[in-house]
Amino acid sequence: MNIALDMMGGDFAPLEAVKGVFTYLSETSNPAQLLLIGDKSQIEKHLENGAELPSACKIIHASQHIEMEEHPTKALKEKQHSSIALGFQLLASGEADAFISAGNTGAMLVGALLSIKPIEGITRPTIGTYLPREDGNLGLLLDAGINADCKPENLCQFALLGSLFAKHVWNIQIPKVGLLNIGEEEGKGNILAQATYPLLKENKQINFVGNVEGRDIFSDKADIIVCEGFTGNVILKMAEGIHDIIKRRNINDPYFERFEFGQYGGVPVLGVNKPVIVGHGISREDSFKNMIGLAEKIIESDLPGKIRNSFRQENADD
Amino acid sequence: MNIALDMMGGDFAPLEAVKGVFTYLSETSNPAQLLLIGDKSQIEKHLENGAELPSACKIIHASQHIEMEEHPTKALKEKQHSSIALGFQLLASGEADAFISAGNTGAMLVGALLSIKPIEGITRPTIGTYLPREDGNLGLLLDAGINADCKPENLCQFALLGSLFAKHVWNIQIPKVGLLNIGEEEGKGNILAQATYPLLKENKQINFVGNVEGRDIFSDKADIIVCEGFTGNVILKMAEGIHDIIKRRNINDPYFERFEFGQYGGVPVLGVNKPVIVGHGISREDSFKNMIGLAEKIIESDLPGKIRNSFRQENADD
Repeated sequence: MNIALDMMGGDFAPLEAVKGVFTYLSETSNPAQLLLIGDKSQIEKHLENGAELPSACKIIHASQHIEMEEHPTKALKEKQHSSIALGFQLLASGEADAFISAGNTGAMLVGALLSIKPIEGITRPTIGTYLPREDGNLGLLLDAGINADCKPENLCQFALLGSLFAKHVWNIQIPKVGLLNIGEEEGKGNILAQATYPLLKENKQINFVGNVEGRDIFSDKADIIVCEGFTGNVILKMAEGIHDIIKRRNINDPYFERFEFGQYGGVPVLGVNKPVIVGHGISREDSFKNMIGLAEKIIESDLPGKIRNSFRQENADD
Repeated sequence: MNIALDMMGGDFAPLEAVKGVFTYLSETSNPAQLLLIGDKSQIEKHLENGAELPSACKIIHASQHIEMEEHPTKALKEKQHSSIALGFQLLASGEADAFISAGNTGAMLVGALLSIKPIEGITRPTIGTYLPREDGNLGLLLDAGINADCKPENLCQFALLGSLFAKHVWNIQIPKVGLLNIGEEEGKGNILAQATYPLLKENKQINFVGNVEGRDIFSDKADIIVCEGFTGNVILKMAEGIHDIIKRRNINDPYFERFEFGQYGGVPVLGVNKPVIVGHGISREDSFKNMIGLAEKIIESDLPGKIRNSFRQENADD
């Protein structure tokens, strides 16, 4: 198993990425082969005490780097020697089985769409955000900002993609899917939610539990919550804002510590042909370690293959 | 000044409404004349120690009551002797200068639209929610759920309505208006936000400060934040949900106590011809007192008149 890791992505790169790699290796008995993509001299500078590179690692030198604020398509086109561009080349060629980056999210999505392509039948691949639930588990909200405008069909696809992720990676046998809405009953909501409800209800591949309101986002009502990316992004950033306030007010509470989203590592790009994981800009050592672990799980469970099968089924049902 | 108050609205009616009236009267040197609409015997039962009704109050008996869950239009049509229907009759006839209820929000909106009508030029009157800001002040988010689908023009009207409210009722001379969005720069966002930005920017009657992201909702970036009612309602309920979690976790913090929305009394229906205030279902004594105070301020400042003037100006500019 070969996992490509962008060493230059995130606010604390490459130091925290290097630390994450070493933590991963020290905690794993049978580690994956890691392809560390980035500026060779910068990466080597951070090797502990001038230690040699562990045998499970190989540095792939990247002479360019895509910054967080750059325009995704333009940057990918102009910086073909950037760590993100190289990562997708490795993934597309089969030299890597997964690609991880905490860099420019837009570039990660565009790179995935252009290189490994969406899975057949999926109109809009999606990136979500984890929801720290009161019961100690995580939920997944899809979409978290990549798809600001959506059609009912997109939300239905998010529901199935999220369900397959929860089943195969989180091992939840029958994940509950909720539709974010502004009322409890069917028929409530804006035009999009009203049109999406019946589609979710009749979809036999998911376990639709109905509408989920803003007050239930952190409850166990649903494992997967679907909405368009505008509202999803507002929710994600509002949760981050609440966490900032909690910290500024010196409130120490284990539940709200789980609102620090960097700790989860990264979220998968769901709906593309190979495993791609996007990390938070504030990713630290543990985030990188967790992202490598998530990549392993997605590769082992063959989530992209499971998704391809389900969407073939979905299209056959139509 | 005559203020009509629905004594039957809210989860703790009529007891808390009666208590609110007495608190208002005891704290006000020159009180308004209060028209208490509701079941006469129920109201009288709650008068303290069988005290007589204060001279500033008059009970208007209502033999019917619209429940929280009833369909607004249907209920108003069928229950013409309900406290909400009677309130709007008093308001429309001029016997009352303002009408307050903590009852069925939908019925309050429909009643306002049918009886006192939207102000000329306003396509969608709106109901907002207060935002407890970290700096100790309140912001106002419009719309909070009444208008789930909006056009750019609606959001622009919300911006002007909110600005006039902040100026004339909150005495903020030049209120800052922000557009809820998922990025900081112009051009970001969904189709609605992208189309709304330039309209807000060119509107000379408001002080547009640009995009406001989810993490800035409780900051002092803007006094008025505009969005469609779907996202607005999710924000409101998510804030209430956070408050519930804070309480369940026994976190005592004065800032988060301000997330208990009942304390603010009610929010105005902005864009209709006379003062109408809608209270939270969980309204208590103080909420009712505060709503009467808000009604006084709106009447004294002639907010509806100010709105009419501004929208005449707006239409002349077009």
